Order: sequence, then C-alpha cells, then structure tokens
Amino acid sequence: MSELPEPTGEHPRSPLRSVAVVGTGLIGTSVALALTAQGVTTYLLDQDPAVARTAEALGAGIAGRPDRPVDLAVLAVPPSRIVEALAQQQAAGLAHSFTDVASVKLPPQRAAVAAGCDLGRYVGGHPMAGRERSGPLAATADLFHGRTWVLTPSVRTGPRTLHLATELIRLCGAELVTMSADLHDRTVALTSHTPHVLASLMAGRLTRPEAGQLRLSGQGLRDVTRVALGDPQLWTDILRSNAGAVASELREVADDLAVAVAALEWLDDPDPAQQRRGAAELHTILASGVAGRSRLPELAGAAASGGQPPPSAPFRPARGPARARP
Amino acid sequence: MSELPEPTGEHPRSPLRSVAVVGTGLIGTSVALALTAQGVTTYLLDQDPAVARTAEALGAGIAGRPDRPVDLAVLAVPPSRIVEALAQQQAAGLAHSFTDVASVKLPPQRAAVAAGCDLGRYVGGHPMAGRERSGPLAATADLFHGRTWVLTPSVRTGPRTLHLATELIRLCGAELVTMSADLHDRTVALTSHTPHVLASLMAGRLTRPEAGQLRLSGQGLRDVTRVALGDPQLWTDILRSNAGAVASELREVADDLAVAVAALEWLDDPDPAQQRRGAAELHTILASGVAGRSRLPELAGAAASGGQPPPSAPFRPARGPARARP
Repeated sequence: MSELPEPTGEHPRSPLRSVAVVGTGLIGTSVALALTAQGVTTYLLDQDPAVARTAEALGAGIAGRPDRPVDLAVLAVPPSRIVEALAQQQAAGLAHSFTDVASVKLPPQRAAVAAGCDLGRYVGGHPMAGRERSGPLAATADLFHGRTWVLTPSVRTGPRTLHLATELIRLCGAELVTMSADLHDRTVALTSHTPHVLASLMAGRLTRPEAGQLRLSGQGLRDVTRVALGDPQLWTDILRSNAGAVASELREVADDLAVAVAALEWLDDPDPAQQRRGAAELHTILASGVAGRSRLPELAGAAASGGQPPPSAPFRPARGPARARP
Repeated sequence: MSELPEPTGEHPRSPLRSVAVVGTGLIGTSVALALTAQGVTTYLLDQDPAVARTAEALGAGIAGRPDRPVDLAVLAVPPSRIVEALAQQQAAGLAHSFTDVASVKLPPQRAAVAAGCDLGRYVGGHPMAGRERSGPLAATADLFHGRTWVLTPSVRTGPRTLHLATELIRLCGAELVTMSADLHDRTVALTSHTPHVLASLMAGRLTRPEAGQLRLSGQGLRDVTRVALGDPQLWTDILRSNAGAVASELREVADDLAVAVAALEWLDDPDPAQQRRGAAELHTILASGVAGRSRLPELAGAAASGGQPPPSAPFRPARGPARARP
C-alpha cells in the first residue's frame, strides 16, 4: 500500500522522527497507527491513561510522555480544549512544533493568540476523515489515505512547523490543502455543518409519523438523514465553534427554501400559467442541485473500486496564499 | 431464494396466471422479470416496441399484446400518463384488473374517476424500490425483494382486483402495506419528496464555491446530496403531482429551520446566557434528529448482511383501513 521505502529505524528518510499524539480517540489513534507503521516513534497521551494504553495495545505507539521534546505534537482533543492543551504542552516542552485536528480553525487560532501561545510553532490542521464510531478501537492506519487534510498556517507560522505538519500529512497518506483559517471555516460551514443541520431537521420530522408510515421510506431518505445520527453533544460543540458562519449559510438556505415553497404552491395552483411558472422555477432548483452535486470529486476509499484520489497539488484560493492575521 | 414451489405450468398455485406490463422501463421490466421467473405468463407492451423487445431479450416475457384479457395489467408508465393508459387499456380489454406503480396515488385515483374508468377493477400501487439508472437494461428480478409495496384501494376497488394485486406483490417478493391514497401521498411527501427538495437545495449551493474548496467535503455531504442527482424533469413531474403536500411539509421545515438559525445566532452572541440558550435549543434539534433517524427500519437488500426485512403484516393506520372516497 505505502509508496514509502521501508523505514530503516536508524536513518529514516523523513524529517519527522518522533511525534506525540495528545488524545487517543479515533483520530489520534489513527494518526498514531499510520505514523508507527511508517517507523515514526510515536508517544500516546490521553487524559485517561487507560485509553492511551488501549491505543498502545493496538500497536499505535508508546503510552506515556517522551523523555525529551518530540518533533511534532498532534493535539487530537475536542475543539474546546485545544488551546488549553496547546498552552499547557508548549509550556511543558512536549514538542518543537504543534498541530491539531479540530474541525474549525479560526476560533482556536484566535484563542491561542489570546492565551499567549507560541504561534510560530503551531499550525492548525483538519483531516477530512472520520467514522460513525469513535474511540481508539475504531481507529485504522489508513483512515486518512487519499483524504484531504487542510493546514491553515497563519502569518506567524514558522517554516519548520509547516514542514513537519506537511510531512505528517504525507506519512498518513493524505492530500494537503492549504488555506486561511477563515476560508476553511466558511467552507466547512457549507460542506459539513450546514448539511448536518439540514439532515437533523429532516430526521427530526421522522419522530412524528406512525411507525407503519416509515415503511414508505427508501434509500434516499436514509442517505439524506444518515449524518443526523451523529452525537448531539459533539455536534453542538462543533456548531457552536462555527456558529456565525453556519447561521449565515442557513439563512441563505432559508431564502432558497422559500423560493422552492413558492414554486410548489404555484404548481398546486389551478391556473395553468402559474403551474408553468412553478414548474420552471422548480426545474431550475433541481437542475442546480444536479450541477452542484456533480462538482463533488470522487471520495478516495469510498468505493472498493473506481474511486479516484483527488489531485495532489495543494489548493490555494484565487486570492492568494493564506495571510490571515490571527 | 423463492419460497414458492416450482411452477408447474399447467396447474400453477397462484391465481395470477397472466400479466401484461405496460411500460418496460426499469420498474416494469423488473416486475416482468420477477413474474416470469415465477412462471407467470407475462406480456410486454411499450409505446416504443423496440424497448419491449429489449425487455423480451432479457427474458422478461413476451413482447406484444395478449390475444385475450390477462388477469392483471401493471401500468408502469410515467405518473402523468397513467389515467390515459388505464382508460385506453380498460376500453381495449387488456386485462381483468389493473394496477400502477406511480409514486403518487391520489391524483391518478381522482383523474380515473373523472375519466370514467372502472374503479372496481383498479387499485393504485407503489413499490418502494428504484435505482439510479433507468430503462430495461437496469432491471433486476429481485428489485422488490423485501421492499415495501403500497396498495391504496379505494372504496370502489373490487375484492378480486385487490387479491390479484396482492398476489403480484407476493410474487415479486415485496411486503404489502395498505393505506388510503391520501395518507400515502402525505407520507411520501415526508419520506421522499421533502428530502429530495432539501438535498437539491443543499447541492445547489455547491455550484458557488471554488473547486478547491469542494475538496473539503466528506462522505456526509455526499450522502445528504446524493438523491439530488435525480433527473430534474422526472422530479419536476413527481413533485408537481404531489405539490400541495410537499409545500405543506416544506413550510414546516422552514419553521424548524428558522429555529435552528436563531439557536446558532444565540450561540454566536457574546452573552453567555444567550449562548447557553442557543446550545440547549440546538441540542434539542440534534437529539430530535437522532431520535427520528433511529426510527427508520433497516432496508432490505441495502447491505450484504445484517439487513432485516420489514415485518410481513400489512400496515393499517390507526384510524382504520383505507376508506377514502375517490
């Protein structure tokens, strides 16, 4: 599977020789499994030492703190705890450089500034991978294979930190995308948080009908609502951290929804002219949906065959490389 | 696979000995394949005789009209053409009894009354199965296996017609659900048409961002928007035929969406009391989504293993068997 030469132990080719993973849940343990498989010495830390030992038992690395600073620490803790962990572990000298895996990037970057963290040794990260299950037992070494992994360097991020985080992504088999923290957060509001809320609203309406009526549901309804099974507390935290951008997206969805309702009301009107107007409007909405959905690239690993990995060149938005001032 | 004894040809156990399928697209040809496999003599009619011959070449039956009336005709034509086909084929004496497979049931029932059709020999039907692909080449004999198939008898539907349609469903391996045409249409507005419009609205928003931003999309977005790939013309027709019920559902979704937007705006407020209020409101929405999604039964055939077929007893709404007056 790997494109890398076998690691030699004494003379690894990678500049990333040692990593500490803080938080050995699904994502942290999957990172650790991938790195250990590539010959990187990986330490496993968790606020619950038993969870870190579980990850160790799975072959993810060594449970416990390293004796001296590692090259890179990966903070795989919940979004609300990242800056606390960053400040604490920078003060304790856990690693030369730090990155995280939170699904929002601007709030931790801002909070890190406010907390007096060393921003030169931190770069925000967000691997676009996950599973329905959580915890170390759900972790797999290939979780990130072919998936997008975003880095959101600030103007203060140092080159060595960016280099080490880039190497982390390469060793995990993921594809690097670089953008500003602000653009990242507006983008995931569109691609992740808004669909989650819509799926939850749709799924919430299924609490009302009789059970027999629900037998009139097919694969389509199941697909549309699948993500609504996500943990409400975790998703409240995620949406809280990006609330402004998600609210903005959803207000626009509400505008579009009002147009769709009007189109359907025209279709339900006895006047043929109104019906034609409604049909044209609805067709436009549906055709726009086809066009938008067709833009999504094939997701690596989503199918046993036929899946195309995304192109390997890092994405840079047209307005130029990230220069957001934290 | 089949629970039926081998058909003997001369003494079949089923009261359904001959069927005419009108419209040999995906659904019609799949019905014909299933019936032919069960030993039912099946005739294949299509406005394009070449399409009927394609179905014949696939082993679905005999292309062309029967010499004398068959037991049951299955009208597998687009929703807008059902009543025309019903009136025409009843006048031509194609079959003793008639059913259809359209995804809405009240409009054809009403139009059949207006067109002077024999309602005693007609029962509306809707198999809950389909594929992304269309046409006879996409057809399979097991398309309906374990799936729900709704019948919507009116007060005028005769017992022999209902019996023959029930037998059709059994021979196709599907599970019968009986309800009024009105309840059917309100139910599919909820379980099929509303999720389709929401998916299209979400997918339509993907026409705007840069291609690189779309690399920040995962399986969740793909699932939520998959049905939006459906043919806009077909779906305009489907939604037109149930426009009032769908508009009503979507107006309620719009109300729920406004609550979600308010919750996110509170979460984005600097006031901690507002934030707590927003978090509580959002958690309620997300938890309701989990509860609703969890009510959906496993879909037969959706997974290679672990799929549970729905219970076999026909569903009757609490308010009693269908007695809708057409």
